[in-house]
Amino acid sequence: MVKNIPNFLPSEPTKEFLDVLLQNENIRIERIVSKGHTSPASGWYDQEDNEWVLVLEGSGTILFEDGREVTMWKGDFLHISAHAKHKVSWTDPDRQTIWLAVHYPALN
Amino acid sequence: MVKNIPNFLPSEPTKEFLDVLLQNENIRIERIVSKGHTSPASGWYDQEDNEWVLVLEGSGTILFEDGREVTMWKGDFLHISAHAKHKVSWTDPDRQTIWLAVHYPALN
Repeated sequence: MVKNIPNFLPSEPTKEFLDVLLQNENIRIERIVSKGHTSPASGWYDQEDNEWVLVLEGSGTILFEDGREVTMWKGDFLHISAHAKHKVSWTDPDRQTIWLAVHYPALN
Repeated sequence: MVKNIPNFLPSEPTKEFLDVLLQNENIRIERIVSKGHTSPASGWYDQEDNEWVLVLEGSGTILFEDGREVTMWKGDFLHISAHAKHKVSWTDPDRQTIWLAVHYPALN
């Protein structure tokens, strides 16, 4: 019944690792493990849903299309509204960064 | 824009500490800090919403009315369906336990 986040970490990820921890029609919770990975150089994430993101370990930077750039460390959390175009512009290359992302429906 | 969980921890909580990190009509995310605290001896939590809970630090035990008892450690997560009656029967008395609780609407 209980599941654990650290226990199924890849030991040496060669690409970003995404695991869906919970998904149904009202919510999707993901654990993402990065190590120096970033979003593709071109294009932006443009999401239908709202996203709330928390850094569990490590650090990374989120860049918004409007020029805002936010570096987050362990314990930092951030709300990304639906259709706020963004990308991950940096993650720590020397250790794993673990993100918890909670996607939920945009408000009516 | 970014907020941080550890930075506003109470240094020595005398009672359980609950902080709402995000709330709107579709979701409520709480950070709860326990240190030896438990639910009241009588009664159960009986929630209208579904809850997804993750242990960020420390450890604690959740008891369900049906007799299941689940001890959770850092990184453990658990889904508690709406109206699954439960309580916190133990938390580590020697250090802080930090819970992240995500409440979202029960499915139709």
